[in-house]
Order: sequence, then structure tokens, then C-alpha cells
Amino acid sequence: MKKIILSYILFFVCFSVIKAEDGHQLWLRFDKIQNTENFFSGIISSNEFVANEFQQSWKKMSGFNLHKKNKLSDNVLVIGTIKDRLIKSLGLEKALKPLGKEGYLIKTIRKKNQNYTVVAGNSAAGELYGMYHLLRLLQTNEFSYNLNISELPTYAHRLLNHWDNLDRTVERGYAGYSIWKWDELPATVSPLYQEYARANASIGINGTVLNNVNASPLILTKEYLEKVRVIAAELRPFNLKVYLSINFSSPKELGGLADSDPLNPDVQKWWKEKAKDIYNLIPDFGGFLVKANSEGLPGPMDYGRTHVDGANMIADAVKPYGGIVMWRAFVYDPDGDDRAKQAYREFKPFDGKFRDNVIIQLKNGPVDFQPREPFSPLFGAMEKTPIMAELQITQEYLGFSNHIAYLAPMWKECLDSDTYAKGAGSTVAKTTDGSIFPQKITAIAGVANIGEDRNWCGNHFAQANWYAYGRLAWDYNLTSEEIAEEWIKMTFTKEENFLKPVKELLLSSRESVVKYMMPMGLHHLFAWGHHYGPEPWCDVPGARPDWLPKYYHNANEVGLGFDRTTEGSNAVSQYNSPLKEQFNDIKTCPENLLLWFHHVPWNYKMKSGKSMWDELCYTYDSGVQEVRKYQKVWDKMEKYVDKERFKHIQSRLKIQSKDAVWWKDACLLYFQQFSQMPIPYDIERPIWDLEELMQIKLDMKHHN
Amino acid sequence: MKKIILSYILFFVCFSVIKAEDGHQLWLRFDKIQNTENFFSGIISSNEFVANEFQQSWKKMSGFNLHKKNKLSDNVLVIGTIKDRLIKSLGLEKALKPLGKEGYLIKTIRKKNQNYTVVAGNSAAGELYGMYHLLRLLQTNEFSYNLNISELPTYAHRLLNHWDNLDRTVERGYAGYSIWKWDELPATVSPLYQEYARANASIGINGTVLNNVNASPLILTKEYLEKVRVIAAELRPFNLKVYLSINFSSPKELGGLADSDPLNPDVQKWWKEKAKDIYNLIPDFGGFLVKANSEGLPGPMDYGRTHVDGANMIADAVKPYGGIVMWRAFVYDPDGDDRAKQAYREFKPFDGKFRDNVIIQLKNGPVDFQPREPFSPLFGAMEKTPIMAELQITQEYLGFSNHIAYLAPMWKECLDSDTYAKGAGSTVAKTTDGSIFPQKITAIAGVANIGEDRNWCGNHFAQANWYAYGRLAWDYNLTSEEIAEEWIKMTFTKEENFLKPVKELLLSSRESVVKYMMPMGLHHLFAWGHHYGPEPWCDVPGARPDWLPKYYHNANEVGLGFDRTTEGSNAVSQYNSPLKEQFNDIKTCPENLLLWFHHVPWNYKMKSGKSMWDELCYTYDSGVQEVRKYQKVWDKMEKYVDKERFKHIQSRLKIQSKDAVWWKDACLLYFQQFSQMPIPYDIERPIWDLEELMQIKLDMKHHN
Repeated sequence: MKKIILSYILFFVCFSVIKAEDGHQLWLRFDKIQNTENFFSGIISSNEFVANEFQQSWKKMSGFNLHKKNKLSDNVLVIGTIKDRLIKSLGLEKALKPLGKEGYLIKTIRKKNQNYTVVAGNSAAGELYGMYHLLRLLQTNEFSYNLNISELPTYAHRLLNHWDNLDRTVERGYAGYSIWKWDELPATVSPLYQEYARANASIGINGTVLNNVNASPLILTKEYLEKVRVIAAELRPFNLKVYLSINFSSPKELGGLADSDPLNPDVQKWWKEKAKDIYNLIPDFGGFLVKANSEGLPGPMDYGRTHVDGANMIADAVKPYGGIVMWRAFVYDPDGDDRAKQAYREFKPFDGKFRDNVIIQLKNGPVDFQPREPFSPLFGAMEKTPIMAELQITQEYLGFSNHIAYLAPMWKECLDSDTYAKGAGSTVAKTTDGSIFPQKITAIAGVANIGEDRNWCGNHFAQANWYAYGRLAWDYNLTSEEIAEEWIKMTFTKEENFLKPVKELLLSSRESVVKYMMPMGLHHLFAWGHHYGPEPWCDVPGARPDWLPKYYHNANEVGLGFDRTTEGSNAVSQYNSPLKEQFNDIKTCPENLLLWFHHVPWNYKMKSGKSMWDELCYTYDSGVQEVRKYQKVWDKMEKYVDKERFKHIQSRLKIQSKDAVWWKDACLLYFQQFSQMPIPYDIERPIWDLEELMQIKLDMKHHN
Repeated sequence: MKKIILSYILFFVCFSVIKAEDGHQLWLRFDKIQNTENFFSGIISSNEFVANEFQQSWKKMSGFNLHKKNKLSDNVLVIGTIKDRLIKSLGLEKALKPLGKEGYLIKTIRKKNQNYTVVAGNSAAGELYGMYHLLRLLQTNEFSYNLNISELPTYAHRLLNHWDNLDRTVERGYAGYSIWKWDELPATVSPLYQEYARANASIGINGTVLNNVNASPLILTKEYLEKVRVIAAELRPFNLKVYLSINFSSPKELGGLADSDPLNPDVQKWWKEKAKDIYNLIPDFGGFLVKANSEGLPGPMDYGRTHVDGANMIADAVKPYGGIVMWRAFVYDPDGDDRAKQAYREFKPFDGKFRDNVIIQLKNGPVDFQPREPFSPLFGAMEKTPIMAELQITQEYLGFSNHIAYLAPMWKECLDSDTYAKGAGSTVAKTTDGSIFPQKITAIAGVANIGEDRNWCGNHFAQANWYAYGRLAWDYNLTSEEIAEEWIKMTFTKEENFLKPVKELLLSSRESVVKYMMPMGLHHLFAWGHHYGPEPWCDVPGARPDWLPKYYHNANEVGLGFDRTTEGSNAVSQYNSPLKEQFNDIKTCPENLLLWFHHVPWNYKMKSGKSMWDELCYTYDSGVQEVRKYQKVWDKMEKYVDKERFKHIQSRLKIQSKDAVWWKDACLLYFQQFSQMPIPYDIERPIWDLEELMQIKLDMKHHN
């Protein structure tokens, strides 16, 4: 250990950026930057909160606070809103107009041989986001006196969904217990709440659903709403609105009503009163997220009603207060038809029937957050009903917080997918942001990967996904690379020898996970329940068929994959032309989705010239080799990183490296029973016997 | 699984050699060979037993028995001894003379346009060994009518040492419980005994020590001797003599004497009577093996006597019956001096003082059966006392029965080492076979790897070590390659596509183990007690220092290795010139023993130009890569092997592959704490954290 300690001390002397580090600061480290004494002569701001937020981080970077000024002088920093006379006097009104409530300008204004750096918005929210943007420019060495930045967010509602239970377990959470300390609220207020709010504000997230979509009715009790009120108060200064997931049976469970039928006037009344109570406590309460008639949860169909009946009833209750209802389309019944088709089948007929404060929340893919899915065909299919994408930041299906998988490329892959809903260029993003369909509400949701762990996300690199989600929710036109670069510079170092290889690692990391877990369109080969590790053989007596991997991979002596062509489940028909034809034809179907749409013979010749089986083997193996490469890359970074984060990531990569081999061996050895073909002999051989892998039963729950 | 079954059936049709196989037949499979109908016209033999043994295997190869003949005819097979008139009449007396009791001739004799194949010895033992040699020729397609073979063994006593306890556990045994079923003896006689005897006879082994050197006095009770008598009777037809390990305290423990002092006349008398009893039961009893004053066992030094006193007393007891005493030199006290020096220090002064029926049994290396040691300097150091090498067939320090390590190269390395005892060419082999020093007894011992497992050795490939030991004991001039080739042909197939790669695998396998376990002269980094897996950090409070890895590796900030030079323990001085000078000088010391003899700075420049640390890293890694290569080699062999043995070996190689990485990671990460140098970045990175490896405590005993 001496060497490591020694070099740490040396580096600490040379570059103060390297210090022992638990990652709690996220991307808001604000390490020292150079020449700060010349940047600003002082600060003018009518918003004390925003000015203080700035000063706090500025002091970390510069070592000193800026003097408050009352009038313009050379190099002064001005932060304000359109309501400030100073901002108007600088002639920014016109430029601010199209930026809406949350947009902002960051401009260098030259007057009388003086430079003013101006951050201006139409509201305190705009100021706030602009101020964080300025901090980012400073921290990443992008600050100059030639700034002319104008930003407004893509989506109006940029939400985190916490799958946090009231007992503080987190469904699919891999970073410790929930940050919401229900047991000590409202009396005790954790400092985590404001830290959390700041982190979200710094990347533009403006709403958070505090509790699990598998919701307990208890969240709507007086007792809990009082706790929610306190959290809301902590988040409010950071422009972060609170939302709640509700249980559709709440009127019956909590209110003692006979049922929760949406057409029952008592039920409607109950919801209206509940909404009133909530808005009395939290005037800016955002609204409700509803998972209904899905995976055993109650819903309107329990009473012979429809999603429309249910959603509209709740929408009516919050409407007077400006609240919205996010109604999840993640529904599927074990009815024998292809699960991938059900959201479309169930919701498409309701287009235009929802209230205007309802938005349909739809997972990116038609099944369930798999490492790779095609986009859900419901995107672009509803012209009169707003749809919002639900992305999963927590890595339920991508190695939990053990595997490094930078997810911006996965989300961009969905958002950039062309639905052809209104001709070419109708990307998923554009079908949801109001630019193709007129929609009053635009929104996006990300299932949070946040917990009580000191580093928030269980893995330092998983912070990049929280960051990337926020940045993409703000502006989906950002590239994965731009976001990765920002994040690395903010979170680690701007040193090029670190930035370049680590950025490359991040950018390819999700594809590596796809390769060693489920390449070529394979999906849902995960272990039962907890979803960690491979179980393509999984067979639980009496289980729903669509909860078993065999439902999805259909391995047999002929081949592998799910026939969703016109000859099969005909899921392709839910896509617009030319996609439906492209997906339907094995020759034109993208090879990275081949086994999603086709049951492909083992000997089928791929574009590489290899048989499907050989390609599968080589792809699994390349995933393993890529993780090994990441280990090499990371180990070389030792001198650029503090010891703690270096060791943490190094250790996680070791797990990932082992797991990649586990995945490869499990899937290839299992499928080999059907392919009856040898694993190509130039590929590294399995180190496990199928029999022993089949005996692995990890003692894990689906919540932490 | 269908593919495998299918191809198995296909191959069964084509080549009958492939069939489901549990390995119990060892190298005595005697698969069908071609054209057998023309080989022999009949058989002439006065030895029914030998003739039957031949016919039994011949029938497997040919499908029929040979007719018994009374007189010579073309192509007849003659098996006989010099006492047979027919053998004399064929003029073989002169050629047989120098071949001793166990030697034999295999000759094609041409007379009157007829060919006779003649197997002849001076005794039934010679006939027997010659007959097995002929079978080997037939099975390996080496039979012809131009045979002119003349063989005699190198060592008179070619022994297995069973470390089998009376409760049927086997110390360092990895193939199930002992084959000696003491509990059911003498009433029930397992067929294993004769199968075992046949296997040994087929490779020339002529003696076996039935019980562990850590001997229970009980073996000398009447009850047990009666059981031994029955085993001896089963082994006798196969020229396999029985020996016993004794506990030096037996007179006290069993006889009720006050002590076991070798100068106590009552003790001497007790041994004489015990010998008499044994020889009454077993007239051809071989003698005793004694571990005395070693690792807590009793011995003459408990009474202030010497090894000479002890050994001679026992020798006197068995002398009248032709018995011998094998007195082990594996002694070491925790007296502070280098353990590697102690056998030499303790025994060298006694040279010439032992009775002529005593032989000193000495492990090949000065420490303890490590993957690589230099030869023990006691070889060649005793001119008037016979020494026999003790080799370890069971893989106590080479991965148990999990790792494939063909040990002929390791044993040859020792036997071929030049001791320079009488000038250049005084190899260890020659210092023990009577060719340099006049000695009445010559012997060699191998610690057996045999147990009750159906495949005898726990791993099909471990059978090769039993085979190789026997063949080398018979003739140490055989090359490792010749032996491997014989064994593969007998045990698997003569198919060149199998023979060549598998032979190469075997030949390099032990060196691979050295590389991933203990390269460059490292030794004894094993886990405490059971010796499976790495524990270079092992520190057991209160343990003997020389039972701890740190005693041997001496890792510190300066470097690694045991300084045995003149500046250190001076163990080099026990070697003859020029070895002592060569080992003493870091520049001339063989690099594969560097850390055995030197404490080498981490930065020391190796012949490759690399630093010692880098060389260590690359060597460990190359061990890992080589095992992975073996996996590839073996997987390609699938079509040449029966399914059962293919899967068995495949599965073991998987374990070996995992273990190799375990070893590499454990040793490099542990030593890195001292070297304070990075593992070269082009090497595959560790997949384990040192901390987790240090927590591994396998639930294993040192016996199975």
C-alpha cells in the first residue's frame, strides 16, 4: 500500500485536484481553476438565493467570494430576470421572449469598453439554470468574454421517478436505502434533500416523483402528506416540484369506500378532496403518476372501466390546481398475444379520449428496459394524446451498480429513432416534445438510480447516468459524447490523458453490456425476480409465460429469437412503413435487433459471412474482451484519480469482468444445447459448466 | 446435448474405440487393433498366469483367444523363462544373463523360414513384464516381426507410497477414499486389489507401501497384519511386494514397553519378534518405511539417539528375512536455520553408518514437493549410504486432481540434474542407481495419487502421472515425450490429430502450473494446511515460521525471494562446485530458480531486459494464457474422445483456468504491495480484489 499512499501525497502537492473522495459531491466538486482573480470584478443580482448558490461554488473554484456591486463595472457578473430593470436596460427583452419560463441567456455584453457577463432568465428558474450553466462553463474551462448562449428546455416536465417504498427499500435500487427518511419526517429534515435538489437543478431536472409506482395507499394519508410537504419545501428553491405515485385503490383502502370505481361519484369526490388537501399543503404540487392494472396493481379495469375512465377521473381532480396525471402504459396481460404488442393494442384506441392534463408515460421499448430494444411503436401512434418517454436510469437490466454502462447512447438511440409517424424525421423525441403533434404537456421521466450511499448511485460512474438523463431531458440534441465530456471534466479531471480514454470507455460501455448479456436482439434472459445475472433456462413452475426467458428467446433446434414478423406475432405491423417492412424482412432487419423480430436458424448467414451461431459466440466474447480492455484503460488512470474512487471503480470493473464471463458462458452453453454447434475454437473457452451455472441462485430481492 | 450424443453415435459406428468410459481401465483398455488374425498362430507358455493375462488383453484387441500350442510353428508366440527348455533351445541364455531377475527379452526369432515371437525372462517376473511390454507394442501399433528388445529395470525397488490412513482417508489424496478396505478385510477381498496390482505390474512397479508415513501403530497389530496378508496374496502374482510404514513408538504403544528407545534391548527384541510375525504371514514382505522425528512423529531422537540408531535397529529386525528399511530424510526442525539445509545437515554426517539394508528416502527437492525446486543437495552427498528419491505423484502442490500437470518433466528435471558428486555427469539418477556409488539397494518411491474413484486418480489425466512414474522407475532414460505418447495411445487413441496436441499439452502442463503458481523459484505460497490455492499472506498466530509462506518469499520493499547465498543462509554451500558458485551468483543462477537462491530487487534486470517485477507479472500471466490455450486444445479433441472423459477433462480445465487467474491475482496483488510497481498495462488485469482473496478459507482437510 505504501506506493499508492506515496504517489497520492506527491500528486496532492502538485495538483490539488486529487484528494481523498467519497463521490458525494457528484459533478458539483468545483475544483480549483486558474486565473480566477481576473474573471469577475463583482456580482450584481437581485436573487439572493441564486447569487449565494453561485458564490458557494465560485469560492471553491477561486478561493474567494465576489463582492456585491450595485452598478455595472468592467467584468461584473450580472444575474437577473426580465423583471430586473438592469436586465431590461441591457436590451435583453427580445432575446428572452422565446425562452419561456425556464430558459436563459448567458451573454457577454460589451459596452463602453467594458465587459459584462450576464445571466438572465424570464423567471427565477431561468436565472437558476443559467447560473448552473455558467458554473459548468467555469469548471470546464469554457468560460470566456465571448459568451452568447441561449437555452430553453426540450420538455416542460423533466422528472425523476423514484421507485422508493415507504419502508425505505428501493425497488431496483442499488445504492442503499431511500434518501427519503419517512420515519424521521416531518420533524427531522435531512441535508440530503437540498443536496439532491441542487444536483437536479444543476442539470435541469424540475420534478420528482417521490415514491414507487407500485404505490402504497399510505402515501396519501395526512401523516405522509405532511412529510411530503416538508420535502417539497426543501426542493422548492431549486425549482424542483414534487409529484406522487398513487395507488388506484386508495379511495377504498384509505377512504373506506366500497370500491374505487372511477365512475362511482363517491370515488370521484374522494379524489377531488384528496387533491384539494394536497394543494392546500403544497400549492405547487406537480401531480400524480399512476401504474394501474399492471403487474397485479389495481386499476379501472377491475370495475370494467378503461384507462381513460381512470385517468380522466384523477385528472379532473388535479385540474383546478394545474396538476397533471402521468398514466403509465406499461401494461401487459398474460393473454397469449405477444407482450411487446400490448401497450400499443391497449392504448392506441384511446387516442384523443384523455383529458388535456393527462400524459401517457411509456417505456422506451415495448417490453421492459432491456439492454437493447427497438423503440415502442406507441411513440408516434397517438396524435391527440401526449406521450412521455420513461427511461430507466437505475440499471435493473444492465448489471445493477456493479457494471459500468453509460446510458446516454441507449436513450439517444430511442429518442433519435425515426417513427415515420409524420414522414421521415418523426423521431421519438419529436413525437413527444410537441414539435410534430400539438400537445399541451411535454414531459420525460427517468427512473432514479439514487440511494443513501455516500456516492448516491452505488457506483461513481453511475452518477454519469443521472447527469446524462438530466442533460438529455433538457436538450436531447446534446450528443452522448458532449455529455460524457462535461461530466468527466466536472466529476474527475480535465486532464486530456484521462478525459479521452475514459470518455471512450463510457461511450462504448453500454454496447459492451449488450454484447456480453443480450446481443443481436436477444432480451429478457435475466435471472428470476432480481434480474442479476443470466438465467436463459429459467423455468418457474406456474409462472406467467411472459415472465420466463424462454418466452423471449424461443431457442430450439431450428434457431433462436422471437418471430414478430407477419408470420409470427406480427408485432412489426405496429410500426409505420418503411419500418414494418424493414423489420419484417430478415435481410433488412437491423442485425442488432435480428432476434427481437425473427426466429433465426442457427446456420443463417449474417452480413459478416458468419453463421448466426458463430456471430453470437463472437459477439458474446467481444463483450468480455471489451470489459477486460476497460480494466486496462482504468488501471492506467490511477495517477489522475484520487485513491478512493480509483479503487472503487477498479473493483467494480473486476466484478463486471467476472460477470461478463458468467453471462457469456451461461448463454452460449445454454444455447449450444439447441444449436448443437461448437463454440468457434479461436474463442476463449468457457470456464463454467452449464450445470453449475444453473445452480446459482443469488439471494437477492428485487429491491435493495 | 443432442449434438454431442449424435456425434458420439456416429463415431461409435466409424471407430469402435469411442465408447462411454469411466476411465477405470486406465491405460489397459486394449481397444481393437487391425489385422490381428495374422499376428500369432498360437501361444506356447509354461506360465499359466502370464499366458492368461496376455490372452485376456489380446482378446480385447483381436476378438479371439490364441490357441495353445505345444511346439514351434510359424508366427507362434512363446512366453517363458530361462528354465524352460524351449527358451534355452532358442539360444537366449546368453542374452538373458545380464538382465537380472526382472529383465526380459522380446525377440523375433527366424528359423526354418518361420517367425517366432519370444518373450523371455530369467523369472516369472521377467516373463510378466515382458508380456506387458508386448501388449503395449501391440496396442500402440509397434508390433512387428523385427523385434529385438532387451530390458532391465534401473532400480531394484520401484515403489508406490500410499499415504493412506487406516480410517481410509488419504493424506493428500484427491481421488476418494483409500482402495484398502481395512474394515471389510480380511473376510472380503475387493477386486480392486488385483486390478491395482495389474496396473502396477504393467508399468513395472514392484512394491507398495500400503499405509501413510504418518503411521498408526495399529498397522502392526495382529488384526491388521492379517488384513495385510490378504492384500499381499492378491498382489503377489503380479510381482508386487507389500511394505508397511511404521510408527517408531510402536513398541511402547502396542507392546506396552516403557519406551521405544532403539538402544533398549526390549525394544530391539520387540521389533525382532514383530518382524518374525510378519514374515511368518508374508514371507516375501518387502520391509519398512519410517518417518521418524519429523513433523511431530516419534523417533530415536526422543531418547537422545540418532537416525542411525533407529534405522539400524529396525534393519536388524528385518535383515534375516531379506527386508529393507527406507528411512526418510524429510526432517526439519524449527531451529532457525534454513529449512532447505536440514536434511543435508542432519544426514550427511551419518554417511557409512547405516546397515546395508537401510536406504535413505529423500524427496526430490530440499523443501517439499514444490512445483519447482532445485534437487536436494543430499543426492550425491552420501557415498556409502544408498539414497532413494521420493517423488510425489499425488498433486499436493500442483492443484490436486483439478489441475492438469503431467509430472514426468518435473521428475526428469530432478533425476537428470547433475550433482557433480563425482565430476560432471553425476546425475541424481546415477547417484541413486548404483552406477556411481556401489550400493546394494537401489530404489525409488512415488507417493501414490490413487483412490477409490472409478478413474483411480480423480482426473483422467492424473493417470498419466501414475503411468509415467512407473515407466521412469523402470527406465529413467525414457523421455517425457515417449512416455506421454505411449500413455495417450494406450489410454485414448493413436489418432495423430489427438496425439500431437494432447502430447504437447501434457509436456508443457507442469511448467504452466509453475508459471501461474510459483515461477522464478518462488515456493510454498500455498494456503495453510490443505495447500490448495494461494496464500502468500498466510500468517497463523503461533505457527512455526517455516510453515508460513513469508518464510519462503521474504517479500519486502527491497525485493522478493530467499537469500540462500553465502551472504544469506548459505544453502548454496551444500551443492558441489560448480553449482554452488553458479547458484550463489545472481548473474549465473538459473532464472527459474532465482528467487529460490536470491532475494532479488524488484527492479533487478532479468535476461529478458525486463525488471524482476515485470517478468514476474508476465510469467504469471503467461501461465493463465497457457491454461486457456489448453482449453482450446482440449475442446477441439471432442470428436476423438468418448463423451464422458471429454466432459470430465473439459470441466477440470475450466477449474484450472479459474484457479490460474486466482493464483495470478493473489500473488501479484499481494506482492504489489511491496514492489509498489504497476502490473504492466498490456497484461490482462486482475479480476479479484486482494481483500476478497484474503478472505477465502476453503473448508478442506489435508486428507480427503
